[in-house]
Amino acid sequence: MLLVLDLVGTFAFALNGALTAVRVAHVDIVGVITLGAITALGGGILRDILLDALPPATFVDWRYLAVAASGGVIVFLFSRPLTRVTSSIDVLDAAGLSLFAVTGASKALELGLGPVQAIILGTVTAVGGGTVRDVLIREVPSVLSSGLYAIPALIGAALAVGATSAGVDQVLGAPAALGAAGACFVIRLLGLHLGLDAPKPPGDVWTGSPPGNNG
Amino acid sequence: MLLVLDLVGTFAFALNGALTAVRVAHVDIVGVITLGAITALGGGILRDILLDALPPATFVDWRYLAVAASGGVIVFLFSRPLTRVTSSIDVLDAAGLSLFAVTGASKALELGLGPVQAIILGTVTAVGGGTVRDVLIREVPSVLSSGLYAIPALIGAALAVGATSAGVDQVLGAPAALGAAGACFVIRLLGLHLGLDAPKPPGDVWTGSPPGNNG
Amino acid sequence: MLLVLDLVGTFAFALNGALTAVRVAHVDIVGVITLGAITALGGGILRDILLDALPPATFVDWRYLAVAASGGVIVFLFSRPLTRVTSSIDVLDAAGLSLFAVTGASKALELGLGPVQAIILGTVTAVGGGTVRDVLIREVPSVLSSGLYAIPALIGAALAVGATSAGVDQVLGAPAALGAAGACFVIRLLGLHLGLDAPKPPGDVWTGSPPGNNG
Repeated sequence: MLLVLDLVGTFAFALNGALTAVRVAHVDIVGVITLGAITALGGGILRDILLDALPPATFVDWRYLAVAASGGVIVFLFSRPLTRVTSSIDVLDAAGLSLFAVTGASKALELGLGPVQAIILGTVTAVGGGTVRDVLIREVPSVLSSGLYAIPALIGAALAVGATSAGVDQVLGAPAALGAAGACFVIRLLGLHLGLDAPKPPGDVWTGSPPGNNG
Repeated sequence: MLLVLDLVGTFAFALNGALTAVRVAHVDIVGVITLGAITALGGGILRDILLDALPPATFVDWRYLAVAASGGVIVFLFSRPLTRVTSSIDVLDAAGLSLFAVTGASKALELGLGPVQAIILGTVTAVGGGTVRDVLIREVPSVLSSGLYAIPALIGAALAVGATSAGVDQVLGAPAALGAAGACFVIRLLGLHLGLDAPKPPGDVWTGSPPGNNG
Repeated sequence: MLLVLDLVGTFAFALNGALTAVRVAHVDIVGVITLGAITALGGGILRDILLDALPPATFVDWRYLAVAASGGVIVFLFSRPLTRVTSSIDVLDAAGLSLFAVTGASKALELGLGPVQAIILGTVTAVGGGTVRDVLIREVPSVLSSGLYAIPALIGAALAVGATSAGVDQVLGAPAALGAAGACFVIRLLGLHLGLDAPKPPGDVWTGSPPGNNG
């Protein structure tokens, strides 16, 4: 069950990273597949390093590699229609974020970490791949710049951890995990559509130009 | 003892990273706490990965997480007065650098690495969090651009390693560690105030614009 | 044998990273040695993390540290004549790429990974150090932007894995490894000289400015 959610999240992030490569970075097929794979596998690799679950599942298990690479190939072949759906990048990113928040937190619990650590690790898994993607294409990472990105991941991970401690996972594992991921997904997309932001520092002292654009 | 120094260094870097987020990146509360936590915990995570001491102490031990997060919250609440003290960012960075150089080198020795490796690992611990911070906000890392940043860390780590091999740590552990950190701290701040630089390559062939500013 | 190739690759990348620091980043001796060492050791550290071969060979074995540091020192002392040979950066990068593709793939096979994973890990080892280098000096990584960078590494790693599965490594280990590295080296340099690119996405939808330059 966790594996299926993890693979769906991997595929969503692979499509997202590959579309970002086509849109922003103007790269060739290697760059498209590479950025797709890094976005898809980066969060899980970070998770497995921090959990000491090395070598990472994504290297030992060929299914992750196949799913990550096929996402890049699909985007390469169908980049024209896919990039026309302008919201697709955000929706795919939200899907990967939601699924990885839940699977990351669940894997941390399974390996014996406490609930707070599991929530943080779920969030790191969720935002990790996208952060590496943004660093490589020289954007400010979403987790720093963008309204409500880490918060929905924290909520999704917390719901997954809460359901597990309540013993729900024995009986209702799959629906509980999907519910937690769904909550994260809805909050992220609502935040994007409504332009919600977490509170800014009071008395903002900032004077420079915004970091979001490059020149 | 090491734990206390490590937590103080974590707190200093959390304040530094959070202040940097407020000053440079114009982010919301999540960005402030995230950048504070990454700056505070990044060096120690790198250290524990390289030492194979996984999962990192910062995830298993809730005190690191609490200290790192509270630094971000404090900066968020008091950003106006804190950012007025313009030298605070540099002083906090120097404090974290000094303490992590000593604790990183000492932990490496404890886990059986040789003295040269321990000095290098102390330096990596000291400059690691700030380097990740600079990459995320798209600055050239201090360790590449700035006069005397790695050198004081190297000296602090070397003094800590030297004191341990001289057997000082049995009798005078705490004063020796504080002395090594203090030497690093003073050299870093002196270097900043006097504008000291390490030697530049002879016959500088460089022609472009300096990498420190973005456009 | 693998160790010798690995050390030669480390030296090539150390020279390359240090020369890049002199050319692009206008840094002092610490920056030159640091960027050289990160470029030289980054790929191997990534490899050893993903293989769970921690602490990384580069920290336990002083020869890697000595070779990486001496590359930086040599560039610092002779930066004027070295930077005059304008193609030296590319040739050194291709040498490191080729050798690390082969040694990374071989080490992965030795530690029991499957052939596909070994090929991917060889490629990650080959492109890893240069990618970290490019992120630190705020360039778009070669693996995303540049024609034929990951592809020759993939080919070199695949040849090394193929030779090993064919049992060649028992009898002809060294020539086979050198042949695989040589193929990667020639393809990389041919690609650079002829301006070859991997295929671009059909119907390129990109409209912004290229990511390769910064302002």
